[in-house]
Amino acid sequence: MTSPLTLEPATTADRGCCAPDAATLDAEDAKQRALVFKALADPNRLRLLSIVKASSTGEACVCDLPGPLELSQPTVSHHLKVLVEAGLLHREKRGTWAYFSLVPGALDEVAATLATL
Amino acid sequence: MTSPLTLEPATTADRGCCAPDAATLDAEDAKQRALVFKALADPNRLRLLSIVKASSTGEACVCDLPGPLELSQPTVSHHLKVLVEAGLLHREKRGTWAYFSLVPGALDEVAATLATL
Repeated sequence: MTSPLTLEPATTADRGCCAPDAATLDAEDAKQRALVFKALADPNRLRLLSIVKASSTGEACVCDLPGPLELSQPTVSHHLKVLVEAGLLHREKRGTWAYFSLVPGALDEVAATLATL
Repeated sequence: MTSPLTLEPATTADRGCCAPDAATLDAEDAKQRALVFKALADPNRLRLLSIVKASSTGEACVCDLPGPLELSQPTVSHHLKVLVEAGLLHREKRGTWAYFSLVPGALDEVAATLATL
């Protein structure tokens, strides 16, 4: 899946001649950006990102995540999937377990999209 | 309403002695932060912020917003209310119409919350 984070800043390039206001975010760009914010719009997903970020090894085993959040493994797995699809987490399977790490620069990119609305 | 943006960075201060990982976002802080991302998790709300931001006067009349978004006035008013409650837009009534401007620094604060997960 293409990451919703692979976005261009809002510009006037490649727009039709008759857009009502070419300097503002167009519908498709807004839709892509909203997907990332939707992934962040859940307290448990924010906590998962925080736990992964705080890990001394830079990654967290899926086996260690349900405990701190007091959630079931399937619920945690669902939230992790949303974060991976949004381009915020990287998933690596090793043996029995999957390990999750932050996609380098991804949170900075989200922050940058706020500056280019 | 207290703005969800009035948040402290995640720290180890004022936490119980037995938190599973005191360095990560706690449940209440995560809940407050998620509210702001929920406000941003909609393409039309992102476009409204973009239009207000691009305005040469620094504000936009509610009367001018349904057109560019091809939405009804009640729908636009709903989205604007969500953005005001999230602490992202300021609303000022003058005569017949309400005018909306960005809350100074609000988008920067959201960006900063990403750096302090």
